[in-house]
Amino acid sequence: MLREGGYAVASDARVQEKASIPDIVIGRLPVYLRTLRLLADDGREVTSSQELGEHLGISSAQIRKDLSHFGEFGKQGTGYNIDFLCQQLQKILNVDRIWPVILVGAGSLGTAIANYQEFESSGFRIVAVMDEDPQKIGKPIGQGLQIGDFADLGRSVADSGAQIAVMAVPAHAAQRVANELVEAGLNSILCYAPITLSAPSHVRVEYIDPVVHFQHMTYYLR
Amino acid sequence: MLREGGYAVASDARVQEKASIPDIVIGRLPVYLRTLRLLADDGREVTSSQELGEHLGISSAQIRKDLSHFGEFGKQGTGYNIDFLCQQLQKILNVDRIWPVILVGAGSLGTAIANYQEFESSGFRIVAVMDEDPQKIGKPIGQGLQIGDFADLGRSVADSGAQIAVMAVPAHAAQRVANELVEAGLNSILCYAPITLSAPSHVRVEYIDPVVHFQHMTYYLR
Repeated sequence: MLREGGYAVASDARVQEKASIPDIVIGRLPVYLRTLRLLADDGREVTSSQELGEHLGISSAQIRKDLSHFGEFGKQGTGYNIDFLCQQLQKILNVDRIWPVILVGAGSLGTAIANYQEFESSGFRIVAVMDEDPQKIGKPIGQGLQIGDFADLGRSVADSGAQIAVMAVPAHAAQRVANELVEAGLNSILCYAPITLSAPSHVRVEYIDPVVHFQHMTYYLR
Repeated sequence: MLREGGYAVASDARVQEKASIPDIVIGRLPVYLRTLRLLADDGREVTSSQELGEHLGISSAQIRKDLSHFGEFGKQGTGYNIDFLCQQLQKILNVDRIWPVILVGAGSLGTAIANYQEFESSGFRIVAVMDEDPQKIGKPIGQGLQIGDFADLGRSVADSGAQIAVMAVPAHAAQRVANELVEAGLNSILCYAPITLSAPSHVRVEYIDPVVHFQHMTYYLR
């Protein structure tokens, strides 16, 4: 069974623009893409909605229905060509390119995110890591970056053309940082702080909070 | 608008046991609890479904409906007593206690998770951090812990009574590690590796993958 865990506050304007396809379907596409790429890495060339469904714990009918919003990707009886479906999903999700991402917060979590190896192959590159702590500014981080001064955010956005930011800052600083990100023109924020942000409707915010997942799991425990 | 981002493969058995309440409702309760606790930290004593709804970007009707599965927590016109509702949600989510958690993987991300300060106040304590790397085993990590040998997992589970594990290991190791966690008797896994795990139906797995969130956001970008 595929279950929804995290949550996001989305742009009304953008949702209307693509209103025909439920957002919950869009949320599953990256998981399909990730799974197909792992199959491709294993040298596989063809798969089926049945196989994907068994792997992901959802019904093959759901997968076929989700994909049918975007076209015909497989033939009855022959299944999906994995490379082709990967390419199509990358196009649909707009990750047939590299998106620059600005990371705010160079603490323990920010350092882990800066070191994460999976972004570049998935369509993302952290182009700047910013912090307010003078002890951190100027130090090396991640793959050949140097921690920048968060006060220079505007220039960093202008230089990189970034639309996406990741926030790895404490909860008490998160709303203020988010306000500055929005002010600087960023419109997509992934927030690791355990807080729900206020943001204008053109800004999409998604959240990662391990406590939300833990507490969801303990509901079912005794 | 409250949107669902992550996903989880859940135990069929446990779902049936509590089948009357949709899992998607359970997934929102930790967010309500987090928000109420932030209001309490601000010295607030009473709130309303309207205020919570505006803060979280969902309708007040949805919040009232979600909470009504568990009883009557507020009165028309007077709203919710924040402390009382927090206590009730903690009971419902079984976090009116501290759950021991075993963390596997003491790399950059594992170190960040071990250092995270929010677990204890939310009902969780990381009681062991385990790795297979002899270079890491024995080194201090987190709050007064020492990295243990993953080979000693069984003893660690027996000593702590842990049911919950967090995996901060690379994708290529994740399935093998998950198999050992299940073998050792753990039944709830939060997986940070970018992979969908195979697990028996009595094991609940939830996932955190920033790429899934990024790719969800870029669908709406141009």
